[in-house]
Amino acid sequence: MNNSFRGRDIISMRALSRGDILKILDTARAMEKLVKIRSMSKILSDKVVATLFLEPSTRTRLSFEAAALRLGARVITVSEPASSSVAKGETLTDTVRVIEGYADCIVMRQPVKGGAACAADACKIPIINAGDGAGEHPTQALLDLYTLHAELGHLDNVKITIAGDLKYGRTVHSLAYALFPFNPTFIFCAPDELQMPDEICGDLSAKGIKYTKTANLSDALATDVIYMTRIQRERFPDQSSYDRLKGSFVLSRAIIEKHNPDILVLHPLPRVDEILPDVDQLAGAAYFRQAHNGMFVRMALLKLVIKG
Amino acid sequence: MNNSFRGRDIISMRALSRGDILKILDTARAMEKLVKIRSMSKILSDKVVATLFLEPSTRTRLSFEAAALRLGARVITVSEPASSSVAKGETLTDTVRVIEGYADCIVMRQPVKGGAACAADACKIPIINAGDGAGEHPTQALLDLYTLHAELGHLDNVKITIAGDLKYGRTVHSLAYALFPFNPTFIFCAPDELQMPDEICGDLSAKGIKYTKTANLSDALATDVIYMTRIQRERFPDQSSYDRLKGSFVLSRAIIEKHNPDILVLHPLPRVDEILPDVDQLAGAAYFRQAHNGMFVRMALLKLVIKG
Amino acid sequence: MNNSFRGRDIISMRALSRGDILKILDTARAMEKLVKIRSMSKILSDKVVATLFLEPSTRTRLSFEAAALRLGARVITVSEPASSSVAKGETLTDTVRVIEGYADCIVMRQPVKGGAACAADACKIPIINAGDGAGEHPTQALLDLYTLHAELGHLDNVKITIAGDLKYGRTVHSLAYALFPFNPTFIFCAPDELQMPDEICGDLSAKGIKYTKTANLSDALATDVIYMTRIQRERFPDQSSYDRLKGSFVLSRAIIEKHNPDILVLHPLPRVDEILPDVDQLAGAAYFRQAHNGMFVRMALLKLVIKG
Repeated sequence: MNNSFRGRDIISMRALSRGDILKILDTARAMEKLVKIRSMSKILSDKVVATLFLEPSTRTRLSFEAAALRLGARVITVSEPASSSVAKGETLTDTVRVIEGYADCIVMRQPVKGGAACAADACKIPIINAGDGAGEHPTQALLDLYTLHAELGHLDNVKITIAGDLKYGRTVHSLAYALFPFNPTFIFCAPDELQMPDEICGDLSAKGIKYTKTANLSDALATDVIYMTRIQRERFPDQSSYDRLKGSFVLSRAIIEKHNPDILVLHPLPRVDEILPDVDQLAGAAYFRQAHNGMFVRMALLKLVIKG
Repeated sequence: MNNSFRGRDIISMRALSRGDILKILDTARAMEKLVKIRSMSKILSDKVVATLFLEPSTRTRLSFEAAALRLGARVITVSEPASSSVAKGETLTDTVRVIEGYADCIVMRQPVKGGAACAADACKIPIINAGDGAGEHPTQALLDLYTLHAELGHLDNVKITIAGDLKYGRTVHSLAYALFPFNPTFIFCAPDELQMPDEICGDLSAKGIKYTKTANLSDALATDVIYMTRIQRERFPDQSSYDRLKGSFVLSRAIIEKHNPDILVLHPLPRVDEILPDVDQLAGAAYFRQAHNGMFVRMALLKLVIKG
Repeated sequence: MNNSFRGRDIISMRALSRGDILKILDTARAMEKLVKIRSMSKILSDKVVATLFLEPSTRTRLSFEAAALRLGARVITVSEPASSSVAKGETLTDTVRVIEGYADCIVMRQPVKGGAACAADACKIPIINAGDGAGEHPTQALLDLYTLHAELGHLDNVKITIAGDLKYGRTVHSLAYALFPFNPTFIFCAPDELQMPDEICGDLSAKGIKYTKTANLSDALATDVIYMTRIQRERFPDQSSYDRLKGSFVLSRAIIEKHNPDILVLHPLPRVDEILPDVDQLAGAAYFRQAHNGMFVRMALLKLVIKG
């Protein structure tokens, strides 16, 4: 078990052991307590964090920046692809080799799968992957784990439904791998066209992790947790098949109260209409708490990779 | 008189009593003194302020951010609509429910009238409305009051001309209401097509506040103050009527010196050509001082709603 | 020799004496030492720096912001032209007259030659020109000088090749003038269409500074330093002449090792393909160190113009 995080890049959930994950979640709990008590710390008060968002993502960027600032760090930011040197034809590796002279850590979102890993190879300071196209989004998976632990009291042996677009959803792929060390049981709930890829199902089987597939949302509520994601119009060849399928993947207060009123409801946000507003008032509707947890997990990661 | 501001939203001038306004202006004067003496304070050094500008506004955003920073707060910002989750179809209330996990106050500009009030209802932390479409822009009105007081030495019984686009101008509507508690006398100077709406004139009459209307700028200079605003081309059906009218609403040094050389000249900025550059050197040309006052008023508001 | 920098604008290299330049470089060395030892300082902890980038430039903006933050200053920023009041028709001078109420120094990039000088005339706080269209980019020239001194141990009597687009390249014009006080010998290496303008060559001759011109990159490597710049497609009438010429101005490891393996290689970055990646590992490939030096030079300038 390697718990020495100082200088490490955070690129993929697959590079994090059970011990790594538990260390990150422990540190995130300490950060949550710190924010509750003192609001702000000086742990990174001599550090500069660069947030390099070559694809926009308000939520993720703001939570990283709030995390850095609450640790006392200063922040430099690129929030728009249009303003970046990459737009002038510079390679991503050149960009990070320049920024490593200004900052102590780079948080990076960009559209190319594997881009964060390339950048990390080129760069002496730690890189945190905040989304690399169809690749991974490990800090989302870690805040999902943090939320599961906070809401359920444990991470082991969770029965969890993952619903929505399981084929293209980077977030749900990262979450599936993130749960590997904790012996989950999955229900994958999606239209056939958008089911979990065979590659990931094969990895699950190889590890002996149980899963079932369904296209019926009511059946999928017989778990501890439902993790909803959005089904995007552009995944479908025509509007009518989109409309038909989308309607089957909408979570309402009525369906929850009928099938499993105690279920915990998570969502990576932003939601559009796949969770109706009447769900928000349920005790199990944890998606805003989940978003807030992102700041604590990102504080933990910044502290760990910069200071150890 | 309710002077307990901690946790309050600042959405509309109509929700602020005379006592509230005087408290804000007093606090702003203390802030101006603080900046003159020490440049920076630690009043909000454990706080994070989010500036959420879903419509761009350099001036307002920078003055809020400078205000927050000079109080020792940290700032997270969305300065472009394109980068926001709202662009992905998220509702404004979902957006602020997420950001309330990261920040201690949200300063918000967005294009929908009433949007700031909706956001405030959904959100536990204070919201300051920095412009909600055709609705209000209360911090502009407060800095206008601050400037009137600073330049004239008092706020009561001011004779003030408001000129330009009075029909669509959010700023002048807020200013009219802001002056309600101070017994002003108004001259509304605009082309007929762009005169002050009947609704507001009715509210003035109901309060016993005197006003007259004119389309003649020379006549309108017989007051203590002229508050100029821009007439926008897009308000007119054709270029020729725009050109004709615009020319009648241009303030020059010559016209001021002829009709009222001592008049105080205000403008919410940015100006285009409705105040000629030769006016800038007049003692009464206070529009840049007015812009600078914005920072002190916004420091006061941030302090009051976050700390009381 | 005027070494009193407090309150000075930094607009053009031509306004900086040899003594000024040496003072800036000395201060930058002190800044580099400070960052190495303590990472962060409080020299400007009561100051606000505004970065006003009406043309995007990630690299320059981030290095100025990191510089300001490492000096303890707070930063307000406009990173996109679309979000600025200038986009609403405001003049640049009005914009800076407003911002001078919020900040203690303005770092400005905008597309109009002479724009920074105009802004400086209108504004009471110091302005640092971070690029004014086809005009100057003095902080780039200063970091180039800093790098020459750091890599060579001296600045006097340097033999330097400047290669690439010498006709339109603002950077190389500023660098030529920046070296005036240090008796350089130049080789200007460019296609005939893109050679150094006669005006600058005339200024060199008038000062007795030696230069030769060539279109042959191999010949141009017989100096202490080669300063590469990009040749842009849009400078050429047709694709074929661009492709032909561009190929002659590509620096490879092979050509360096054949002609002058010890040559120092600089580049203002971003590069596209005018320096091949295999050059990066050479001891003389100093362009990333050069970029990193930008932060120290900008720290020096901010300190000098704000505090003296």
